[in-house]
Amino acid sequence: MTQGIATADLETILDAASSAAPAAAAAQPAERIRWLTAVADALDTAADDLVALAAEETHLPVTPRLRGELRRTTFQLRLFGQVIADGAYLGADIDHADLQWPMGPRPDIRRVQVPLGPVLVFAASNFPFAFSVAGGDTASALAAGCPVVLKAHPGHEQLSARTAHIVRAALLDAGAPEGLFAMISGVEAGVTALKDPRITAAAFTGSVAGGRALFDIAVARPTPIPFYGELGSINPVVVTPGAVADRGSDIAREYVASFTLGAGQFCTKPGILFLPEGHGLDEQLRQAVSSIPAQPLLNQRIATGYETRLGELRAAAAVDTVVAGARTDQLSFTPTLLAIPAKDFLVADPGLRQECFGPASLVVTYHDQAELHRALALLDPGLTATVHGEQEETGVVRALLAILNRQAGRLVWNEWPTGVTVSWAQHHGGPYPATTAPTTTSVGAAAIARFQRPVAWQGFPDALLPEALREGNPWGLPRRVDGERNS
Amino acid sequence: MTQGIATADLETILDAASSAAPAAAAAQPAERIRWLTAVADALDTAADDLVALAAEETHLPVTPRLRGELRRTTFQLRLFGQVIADGAYLGADIDHADLQWPMGPRPDIRRVQVPLGPVLVFAASNFPFAFSVAGGDTASALAAGCPVVLKAHPGHEQLSARTAHIVRAALLDAGAPEGLFAMISGVEAGVTALKDPRITAAAFTGSVAGGRALFDIAVARPTPIPFYGELGSINPVVVTPGAVADRGSDIAREYVASFTLGAGQFCTKPGILFLPEGHGLDEQLRQAVSSIPAQPLLNQRIATGYETRLGELRAAAAVDTVVAGARTDQLSFTPTLLAIPAKDFLVADPGLRQECFGPASLVVTYHDQAELHRALALLDPGLTATVHGEQEETGVVRALLAILNRQAGRLVWNEWPTGVTVSWAQHHGGPYPATTAPTTTSVGAAAIARFQRPVAWQGFPDALLPEALREGNPWGLPRRVDGERNS
Repeated sequence: MTQGIATADLETILDAASSAAPAAAAAQPAERIRWLTAVADALDTAADDLVALAAEETHLPVTPRLRGELRRTTFQLRLFGQVIADGAYLGADIDHADLQWPMGPRPDIRRVQVPLGPVLVFAASNFPFAFSVAGGDTASALAAGCPVVLKAHPGHEQLSARTAHIVRAALLDAGAPEGLFAMISGVEAGVTALKDPRITAAAFTGSVAGGRALFDIAVARPTPIPFYGELGSINPVVVTPGAVADRGSDIAREYVASFTLGAGQFCTKPGILFLPEGHGLDEQLRQAVSSIPAQPLLNQRIATGYETRLGELRAAAAVDTVVAGARTDQLSFTPTLLAIPAKDFLVADPGLRQECFGPASLVVTYHDQAELHRALALLDPGLTATVHGEQEETGVVRALLAILNRQAGRLVWNEWPTGVTVSWAQHHGGPYPATTAPTTTSVGAAAIARFQRPVAWQGFPDALLPEALREGNPWGLPRRVDGERNS
Repeated sequence: MTQGIATADLETILDAASSAAPAAAAAQPAERIRWLTAVADALDTAADDLVALAAEETHLPVTPRLRGELRRTTFQLRLFGQVIADGAYLGADIDHADLQWPMGPRPDIRRVQVPLGPVLVFAASNFPFAFSVAGGDTASALAAGCPVVLKAHPGHEQLSARTAHIVRAALLDAGAPEGLFAMISGVEAGVTALKDPRITAAAFTGSVAGGRALFDIAVARPTPIPFYGELGSINPVVVTPGAVADRGSDIAREYVASFTLGAGQFCTKPGILFLPEGHGLDEQLRQAVSSIPAQPLLNQRIATGYETRLGELRAAAAVDTVVAGARTDQLSFTPTLLAIPAKDFLVADPGLRQECFGPASLVVTYHDQAELHRALALLDPGLTATVHGEQEETGVVRALLAILNRQAGRLVWNEWPTGVTVSWAQHHGGPYPATTAPTTTSVGAAAIARFQRPVAWQGFPDALLPEALREGNPWGLPRRVDGERNS
C-alpha cells in the first residue's frame, strides 16, 4: 500500500460510489442483510490472519483484546442486519387523508427514511477493527443503504488493505453493487474526497484537533454535509465518601485497570478521578499503578505525543506525581498517576482538563460537595461520566447526576466507562467536543439514523408508493398510522 | 419596539434562558403539555387582535389566510402536546444486563432523550404566525423541554411583540419557569446570541443567503451547535403527456393558483412547471394568470427584491414572457409567467433555476423524457417535487420518481406543493440548499427530535434512574426492551 492514491483512482472510486448509490438505496431489506452478514462471515473466516496482522501493526495484545475486538466488529455487522429486519429504522409512518383534521383538510402523507448517499468514513487508529475499515461507521452506513468510501488510518496500513479486500470481495460475492465499498489512503485523498460533491456525509473517530479540522472543511463546502465526528473526552469519575468507606480499595484497583486498559488509548479512558480529601487510598493507588507492566503504544507518533503531553501535565502548577511512569523502550510506557487538590484544579491551566491519550490519569481531591460541583462545572462535555457511590447517599448522588446529565452522553454507576457495549439502547456521543453532532450516536443500533433522511409521499396511489409505505405493509414494518403506534 | 435590544438586556435574557434549562428539562410530561396548551389557548383567545395586527403589518388577507394560519399555529402547539403524551419521542429503550450477549457480557444500558438546552429561533417574514414567534420551531423546542430565545422578524414587529407578550404571560401563568421564553430583535442581537455559549442550537426559516450566513456563524463557534435552517426551494412540478391530455386545463388553472397563493411568498411555491412540447395550454395559462388580481407583497424590501429578480429572469436568454405582471402600487404586483424550451434551459444561466420570491413562475417545455431528465438533474435539491401524471404511464412516472426521490424532501402526486399539513408523518426538509440539516424536519411531529440528545444510563438502581427509564415504566412509555418493541 502506498502513502496515498492517485487522483485518477480517487475519481474512479468516487464515481463508482455515486453510481452505486441508487442500487444500494433500492435494494430490498433481505439483500442488505445478506451483504452485512457476508462481510461478517468473511472477516470471521479470516480472523487468525487479521488478528495477527493487527497485533503486528498496533502492538495490541491478541487475547483478549484483538480477538474480542474482531468479535465485536462482526457482531456489530450482524446486529445492523437485525436492525434492518426489525424495520423501525425506516420510520415508515402514514397519515391518511382526513377532511376533519383540525387545522384543515389533510392530504394522504407517508414518510420513510432513505439513504443519504455516499459516505466518507475516516478510520481511527486505536480500534483497528471496531472503529476502522469494517467498523461501526461503515456497518451503519452500509445498513442504511449508503456506499462507503473508507479513508484508511496510516497506523495499520496492511491490516486496512487486507480488511478492505475481504469486505469488497464479500460484498461483490453477495451481489452488492460494484462501488458500494472502496478504500482510499493519504490525508490529501481524504480531504479531496471530503470536499467532493458526490460525498453526502462523513464520519470520523479521533482527536479533537483532527476532527475539528475536517468538520470545518465539511461545513465550509458550497454544499455543506453532515459530519459525524467522535472526538475527545476526559470521562470524569466521581467517588463519594460513602463509596470510599465501603470499597475504596476495590475502586482504586479498578480505576487503575480502567485507565491503563489498552495502554490508556480509549476515548472512554477515565482521565480524572475525583476523590474526597482524606480518602486514604494513596498506598493502594500506588501499588495498583506500580503493578501494571509497561505496554507499547500504537505507534511512534502517539508515543512521542504522549511523552510531551505527560511532561506538560507533570510540570503544571500544584500537580503531584504519585507514580512516575517510565519509557521502557521506543514505544512502551509504565503508567503514570498524577494528583492535585480541587482548590488548585479550579485555578489550574485548562490543559489539565483535556484528554491525555495514553496510560496516565489525574486524581483530584475535593474538600466538599460544593467544591466538587465547581470543579465538575469546569469540565468540557464528554462521552461519559461515572459515579461511584452508595444508594443511601441520595442527596449527594442526585445532585451529582443532575450536573453530569448535562455534560455527558453516557452515565455510569459503580462501573467503569471503558468498554462500550453494542446494543439497541447504547449511546456513544455527547455535546461538543465529545462529538460534532450531539443528537447522534456512533455506537449501537441508533447509529444508522446518521445516514438517512426522510422523504414524504403525498397523495400517491398504492402502486406508485415504495413498498415500505404501501397500505398492505408488505414488509411487515412497525408503522405509526394516523397517529397510532403499532397499527 | 425598538430596532434592537440593549446588550445588558440580551445578557439578562440569555442568563434567564440558561437558568430555566434545568427546570424545563426536569418538568413532568403533563407540565410541558400544560405549557403548550396554555400558549395555544391564549393565542386563540386573542385571535381577533392578532389577525388584525398581522394583516396590517404583512398585507396578507385575513380570510382564509391569516385566520387559517393562526389556527394551524395553535393546532401545532397542541399537536406537540400529543407528541409528549404519546412518549415515543423520548426513545426510552432498555437493554438489561446480559452475560450471554454475543460480543461479550452486556451491562444494563438504558437510553432516553434529553433537551439540548436554550434554542435560538429566527422567525420568518412570510408566515407571521406559523413560522414566527409561536411557530413550529418554538413549539417543537418548548415541547422538547428547551428554553427559547426568539429573534423577531422586523417585517411584523408589533405582531411579534404582542405575540411574545401573550406567550410569556401564558407560560408563566401555567407555571413554566421564568426564562423559558423571551424575544429579542435586531440583527446584531441575533448574531450575538448565536455566538453565545449559552445557546445550544438554532433554527431558522428564510433565504439561502441569510440562512447560510447564520449557519456559517453557528458552525464556526469554538463550540459549534446544530443549526436547523430551512432555506430555499424551486419546487419543480412535472406534467406528463398523459396528464396534459387528460386534464390539461385543470392543471393550468391549479398551477397558477398555487404559484400565486400568498402572492408567491411560500417556500413551497412551484417555481418551475415542466410541460411537454405542444401542450396546447398557452391560452389557458394566459387566462388563468391574467385573472389573478394584484396582491401586495410583505414589505418594501421584498417588493424591491422581487422586481429586480424578475427583471433579471425576463432578460435571460431564450426566456419568453407569457404574461408580464405589473406593479400596481408601492407593494402590489399582478403575477408574471415566463417560459423557456428545455433545450435552452439546459444551457441557461443558473440563476434561472433559483427561487424567485413572489408571484412569478417559469414554464419549461421538454421535447422528450430524456431531455426532461437532463433538466431535472440540473436542479438543486429542494423541499418538494411534484408529478402530475396518469398511473398508466408506469414507466415514465417511475423513472421520474426515481430521480425526484433523490432531490426532494416531499414528493407530491397530482396535487400541489403549497400547503404543508402538520401531522405525524409530515416531512418538511431536504438536502442542502433546501435545508442545512437534511436528516431533520421543521414541520410535523418529528420536528421535536432536532432539540434533543440521547443520554445512556449504565448500571443504575431503579431509584436513581429518570422516571422514563424505570423498570415499572411509570410514564407508560412505548419502549424497546432487550431489542423487542412494545415491551
